[in-house]
Amino acid sequence: MSMRVRDLGIQLPGLPTGRLNSITDVPGVGVGHCTVKQGSSIRTGVTAILPHSGNIFEEKVPAAVEVINGFGKAAGFNQVRELGEIETPIILTNTLSVGTALDALVKYKLQRNPEIGRKHATVNGVVAECNDGWLNDIRGQAVTEEHVQAAMAAAGPGLPQEGSVGAGTGMSSFDCKGGIGTSSRLAGDYIVGVLVLSNFGLWHQLKVAGVPVGSILPKPGQEETEKGSIVMVVATNAPLDSRQLGRVAKRAGFGLARTGSVAGNGSGDFVISFSTGVNIQQLNSETLLSARMRDDKLGKLFEATVEATEEAILNALFTAGSMTGRDGNHRPALPVDDILDILQQYQPIKPEEE
Amino acid sequence: MSMRVRDLGIQLPGLPTGRLNSITDVPGVGVGHCTVKQGSSIRTGVTAILPHSGNIFEEKVPAAVEVINGFGKAAGFNQVRELGEIETPIILTNTLSVGTALDALVKYKLQRNPEIGRKHATVNGVVAECNDGWLNDIRGQAVTEEHVQAAMAAAGPGLPQEGSVGAGTGMSSFDCKGGIGTSSRLAGDYIVGVLVLSNFGLWHQLKVAGVPVGSILPKPGQEETEKGSIVMVVATNAPLDSRQLGRVAKRAGFGLARTGSVAGNGSGDFVISFSTGVNIQQLNSETLLSARMRDDKLGKLFEATVEATEEAILNALFTAGSMTGRDGNHRPALPVDDILDILQQYQPIKPEEE
Amino acid sequence: MSMRVRDLGIQLPGLPTGRLNSITDVPGVGVGHCTVKQGSSIRTGVTAILPHSGNIFEEKVPAAVEVINGFGKAAGFNQVRELGEIETPIILTNTLSVGTALDALVKYKLQRNPEIGRKHATVNGVVAECNDGWLNDIRGQAVTEEHVQAAMAAAGPGLPQEGSVGAGTGMSSFDCKGGIGTSSRLAGDYIVGVLVLSNFGLWHQLKVAGVPVGSILPKPGQEETEKGSIVMVVATNAPLDSRQLGRVAKRAGFGLARTGSVAGNGSGDFVISFSTGVNIQQLNSETLLSARMRDDKLGKLFEATVEATEEAILNALFTAGSMTGRDGNHRPALPVDDILDILQQYQPIKPEEE
Amino acid sequence: MSMRVRDLGIQLPGLPTGRLNSITDVPGVGVGHCTVKQGSSIRTGVTAILPHSGNIFEEKVPAAVEVINGFGKAAGFNQVRELGEIETPIILTNTLSVGTALDALVKYKLQRNPEIGRKHATVNGVVAECNDGWLNDIRGQAVTEEHVQAAMAAAGPGLPQEGSVGAGTGMSSFDCKGGIGTSSRLAGDYIVGVLVLSNFGLWHQLKVAGVPVGSILPKPGQEETEKGSIVMVVATNAPLDSRQLGRVAKRAGFGLARTGSVAGNGSGDFVISFSTGVNIQQLNSETLLSARMRDDKLGKLFEATVEATEEAILNALFTAGSMTGRDGNHRPALPVDDILDILQQYQPIKPEEE
Repeated sequence: MSMRVRDLGIQLPGLPTGRLNSITDVPGVGVGHCTVKQGSSIRTGVTAILPHSGNIFEEKVPAAVEVINGFGKAAGFNQVRELGEIETPIILTNTLSVGTALDALVKYKLQRNPEIGRKHATVNGVVAECNDGWLNDIRGQAVTEEHVQAAMAAAGPGLPQEGSVGAGTGMSSFDCKGGIGTSSRLAGDYIVGVLVLSNFGLWHQLKVAGVPVGSILPKPGQEETEKGSIVMVVATNAPLDSRQLGRVAKRAGFGLARTGSVAGNGSGDFVISFSTGVNIQQLNSETLLSARMRDDKLGKLFEATVEATEEAILNALFTAGSMTGRDGNHRPALPVDDILDILQQYQPIKPEEE
Repeated sequence: MSMRVRDLGIQLPGLPTGRLNSITDVPGVGVGHCTVKQGSSIRTGVTAILPHSGNIFEEKVPAAVEVINGFGKAAGFNQVRELGEIETPIILTNTLSVGTALDALVKYKLQRNPEIGRKHATVNGVVAECNDGWLNDIRGQAVTEEHVQAAMAAAGPGLPQEGSVGAGTGMSSFDCKGGIGTSSRLAGDYIVGVLVLSNFGLWHQLKVAGVPVGSILPKPGQEETEKGSIVMVVATNAPLDSRQLGRVAKRAGFGLARTGSVAGNGSGDFVISFSTGVNIQQLNSETLLSARMRDDKLGKLFEATVEATEEAILNALFTAGSMTGRDGNHRPALPVDDILDILQQYQPIKPEEE
Repeated sequence: MSMRVRDLGIQLPGLPTGRLNSITDVPGVGVGHCTVKQGSSIRTGVTAILPHSGNIFEEKVPAAVEVINGFGKAAGFNQVRELGEIETPIILTNTLSVGTALDALVKYKLQRNPEIGRKHATVNGVVAECNDGWLNDIRGQAVTEEHVQAAMAAAGPGLPQEGSVGAGTGMSSFDCKGGIGTSSRLAGDYIVGVLVLSNFGLWHQLKVAGVPVGSILPKPGQEETEKGSIVMVVATNAPLDSRQLGRVAKRAGFGLARTGSVAGNGSGDFVISFSTGVNIQQLNSETLLSARMRDDKLGKLFEATVEATEEAILNALFTAGSMTGRDGNHRPALPVDDILDILQQYQPIKPEEE
Repeated sequence: MSMRVRDLGIQLPGLPTGRLNSITDVPGVGVGHCTVKQGSSIRTGVTAILPHSGNIFEEKVPAAVEVINGFGKAAGFNQVRELGEIETPIILTNTLSVGTALDALVKYKLQRNPEIGRKHATVNGVVAECNDGWLNDIRGQAVTEEHVQAAMAAAGPGLPQEGSVGAGTGMSSFDCKGGIGTSSRLAGDYIVGVLVLSNFGLWHQLKVAGVPVGSILPKPGQEETEKGSIVMVVATNAPLDSRQLGRVAKRAGFGLARTGSVAGNGSGDFVISFSTGVNIQQLNSETLLSARMRDDKLGKLFEATVEATEEAILNALFTAGSMTGRDGNHRPALPVDDILDILQQYQPIKPEEE
């Protein structure tokens, strides 16, 4: 039931995927989850993405942010825009836990960097969120700093769990269950990986591999909502500076659009992108030396970003099982069998060759 | 051969179209073309979009611009961002004729507004462009001020010509012939109309109604290029202020994405949006009174924008015939029959009911 | 010793001030402080600015943000940019307490608005910060949610305390003691009020009323730093929409510049502006009606913003007494007498007429 | 009469100036003017700034733009934002001649680069403007392409003429005559040069070296206007990328603010910055290698930018003689003697030491 789209034989033509078809195909990138489920009402959690396994404050990565629709509460974006770099793990969680996540991130860095707030300046934590309030008692603010620390501690290589896990635990998408999804693409010598926290979309908008299944199949969920959001994290080992990473981040929106999204009014649609492939050298006390790709060579990276974002979202939808939460609110899983039936009529589905 | 997508029976589920399925369904909006074809090398022109038939400098319209990929030479955008309004017709033409178009626009307004440059300040002309240099001897700068005046003079209601006409004359898209296309959608009490100048895309990226025909059919054109661009003009009679029109403009990019675009590096992808539905009243010498929609009611307008943009692009592609131009360079028309064959396998094509 | 600049007779030609020469001259605006001083190391606090005394989540105010230099950790800015409104009190505190302030703000709104996170969407808390780490053991994260609640509870009309109080407790400016300052200007029928949290600047840059005192007098403080920041909050009762409030916010930077700032690399310079003068009426279920000033009448408001920002910063500097904090670190008060001596040579100082 | 501020002994404490105290102190930068005066009504012209003496299209320079107040018609800014580079000379002229300047720039590059519009893409001309309509019959559009070519041809090293010359011919500032001014500052190992086209400000706002002379002396000019504008061009040989040049550009606004500007509603205040100090090497076919300064070393460059901008504006004002133009409209020269008298009371004026 909970298979990834590609394993179901759904065809997504384009660039080849990375080995795991995951953001963790980008060497060094780690993902960790902490799922928080308590009683019948708490359905939430935390997901941490680590650009590399070293001390990120000391070895910052070039980065950019793109706000597609700003109805959201992400933190740390102003400084990323100004300095073009990220200096902490990226934390995803529910909307009302941004403050807690920020606090946890500060403590995490204070422990590892005794000079923060003394000789060094302060630390800019990057946190993004979606609203899981339909399934989760979000007013309960169940996420604690310990949960955030646990997600960071759990971060590692390998294919991360997808669907209703970590920050994705209580999320909804297209009136079905949403959550965490990931995918990657090879773009020449480089790789682009995307991880999404998917919590957006109305059923009638849903497109799978271009097929407008939401306009063909009856809506499985009970109640339409526009209080969604999506966070898209794009990682690459291509040597890009922050301006170029901003260009890459913008293309994540093109992948989002392919799934049927119109970036609804209440949907906070945010992108964070970073590069692990920039080797910055200290030339002298004032000057740094680094490489970056030519802009006219970015076309394939843009394609990779669009494709990996689309598939990461589909993976989130296809892997998330149904869930009941707060006040008996229920989100069904995506009706995968019905969708496969439709796709069979629209395109030849073939099982992944072995 | 040169039928619009909907007339070919291609299904694009969603909101109903306006009467003409055109930007001119928005009451008052006029479109005029001036096609410039000379000898074997000049394949270019001008298209003018008039927000209303009155004096636009005296009755400005709320407006916004969105730069999806800024590799382009559009003029007048800074002032639209600052003041949130447009005060001239919108001119589309080829890249190296922006200066000429700007000059013509200035003269057009000087004639109609004797106080410009005297008592009043100056005029902010809005011009956008695509590079038709593959078919057109763009270095020849064949567009004159008279051509621009002619396009404005020709502007009127009714379904505008589409395909290789006006500014679209020499444009290419997806390695086939591109050009002008338009579409509209009803969104509750209001209407959204889109007109595009389509000159972007590589063949392998093309999606028609979600079907990846570019990855299935062989490439019909000779040479891949990434020197494209697209201009999307979005008009609505919904009462929106400039901030909200900026939100609408951003959604045009979602329609663009549905056709397979990844906003390639060399593609200048620009959106201009305006509202004709704002009745601004002078409350006293200092204060204006006006109405605007609630942001939480914008969802349908966003859907309308996405859908109309997708269909306007498809209309440009489907209606543009093949063309030979500069140095014998050739762009084939879109292989419509082959695409219809594919679509038949992917979705039941039915002729538009009468 | 701790007199405001105007009471010292320093002349700042321009528009007349409001009655209290304070942000609270804007009717309805309230300011509250909670000063947190513990032992020899904790020198910090919280300042809350309330746009009005009602339920701000239910009666949102049009607002804008301007990031002059984004080296800072302010929260909530993305949504203000998208929707053009503020729906919570504005909280100022130290850099590492943004998470705590955000949490407190969320709880504050949850208590007052039982539908947040249920029927309604979530709440977008606005928090800005400066780094008081020289005098304050900022790593100690002494600010608690109770402190934030206390600042909001204390908010009211009247001249707020200035200098080393609330969020200003441990701040430094121009190598002297900094903190909270406020000022206001009458601009025709309207009033503009500014409150600053001043924590920026190197001594040699300081200008008082245009006189470069920092280049004339010896530096009073021990150690130069560029880890500063300034938050400027601009309130007005002029009817402005969010686009216009963005224009106003930008002018706060011009007032900042007059004091000698060059917006140093490490200085997070942020502006938040809002209007209390917009009466938004529900026209029907979809449409709102409201008034706004003509843009060509904004000149005086811009002047008012520049002047009030300059004077608010000077008030912060002149009213803040010396302080010793963490590890015996010391910030002297501004050498007011020496500055007055210089100004006497540069301009005729006259005591404020009574 | 027409002496530069520093030659008059006016003190502007801060960093040392370059040898010529001019933008041309930045090695390689050239400035050229073409003054267009015809009969009693035409008072206008063109100024060209060349980043270096080579082929700029082939050796682009990293660049940024900053729009302080977007009430203006500058061209080419969107592409500079996207790609972070400039590929043509920078042209300054009057508002209604932007189209002509753009055309001339295109022709200039087409001649030098036969592959533009063929193998290469098109060219992005950068043009900025101010409205000289008070003295100049701007409706006459007297500037021709030949004038633009002449300004570019005249570009060279050495101290450029200041005041009523080139694009500055018909400009006004602070109700007096405005025009072209320049200045430079040494910032450690690097130099920052600024050239301004000054056409902004109301008399009562004028500050010279911090002294509010406009509020002390009676207004010399006849008629207040807010239809001004200023263009500030910042050049440096410091190795900066486009993000950092954007930070530098923003600081030009701080220099502008020191002269009394409040960025009035009708004033189009634009900044263009570029670096000549970046040696970009092709590492392989895909990747470039280049050096850039550490952001935490930018402080001095920011100071240099602020100071040089302030002095460039003052040089424009102090060197521009009175002028009569269209319809007998007259702009007096700045009342230099009266200002020197005031400054003598406010600060010890000493003649520049030799």
